[in-house]
Amino acid sequence: MAPVILVILAHPYPRRSRACAALVEAVRNMRDLEVRSLYDLYPDYDVDRAAEQSALERARLVVWLHPLFWYTVPALMKHWMDDVLVRGFAYGAEGSKLAGKDLLWVPTTGGDDAAYSAAGRHHHAFSAFTPGIEQTARYCGMNWLEPFVLHGAHEIPDEALRDAGLRLRARLEAWQEESGARRA
Amino acid sequence: MAPVILVILAHPYPRRSRACAALVEAVRNMRDLEVRSLYDLYPDYDVDRAAEQSALERARLVVWLHPLFWYTVPALMKHWMDDVLVRGFAYGAEGSKLAGKDLLWVPTTGGDDAAYSAAGRHHHAFSAFTPGIEQTARYCGMNWLEPFVLHGAHEIPDEALRDAGLRLRARLEAWQEESGARRA
Repeated sequence: MAPVILVILAHPYPRRSRACAALVEAVRNMRDLEVRSLYDLYPDYDVDRAAEQSALERARLVVWLHPLFWYTVPALMKHWMDDVLVRGFAYGAEGSKLAGKDLLWVPTTGGDDAAYSAAGRHHHAFSAFTPGIEQTARYCGMNWLEPFVLHGAHEIPDEALRDAGLRLRARLEAWQEESGARRA
Repeated sequence: MAPVILVILAHPYPRRSRACAALVEAVRNMRDLEVRSLYDLYPDYDVDRAAEQSALERARLVVWLHPLFWYTVPALMKHWMDDVLVRGFAYGAEGSKLAGKDLLWVPTTGGDDAAYSAAGRHHHAFSAFTPGIEQTARYCGMNWLEPFVLHGAHEIPDEALRDAGLRLRARLEAWQEESGARRA
């Protein structure tokens, strides 16, 4: 079986999603790729830990795809992290089920590059908001890949959004080829 | 009426809480101080936005008190942020209900100082995980006070924990005095 990609999608308002939806649609029909849409699966925040852990165990690459809310993941995705990435599974003694897997962070943001600067309205470069996410992955023994960040999600033209989807897909396909080659 | 302090407490397992519980108990009986325990109020994640916004409007100092989970706030507190600190209330046109209030962040962590360093198991100084929280407050126009961080929460001796509670209380009392003086 080819290396499996698991996309954890967390958009609180799927019907209002444009950027995240476009990115997901661009990759959804790839082989050996599973999308789990948390707000569809768990509208009542009743995360099925066993099902989520099982999906993670099947994956070789985990993708966290979501709009940035208050500089980090939306609440349900935080609940997923708190509830699924627990000691004994993700870290701690015998908690090495995620070790060696790759992690790709794919946040979409409403701000543009200028907003994410010392003089901009977010007062920091975007990279200032990365450590908590990156370190969550690393603490679980996962390999942190260069994030795929889509800024300006509210206003990005259709053409540029389509292009972003193609770039994300190309990135995942290249990963599958490389990983397959490493296994062969 | 004296300046009001609102403590937003978010401990997912109140019965297992020791450090957060001790800090809250040290300040709970102060005058003009309200504690809202999110996991007690909203075990089903059904945050009452109107009630939370009303509590915020009454306050002059807001305290976010919680254990650090995956380098940020626990899931229900993230839900509180996503759901309560919305455009039109906390930011955006006419969204200035929090402007000018003070914000004190009081996280407790399981790691010690050494864990929060480039060579430690969290690979960063603690301050690397602050920007997202700080910028959330600042984006709402709140004044960011120097955080009150309690490390080593799992193993802190009773005596040191009591001392931390006293220091937190002294900090809040000093704030009340100064704020009262500014108003007089």
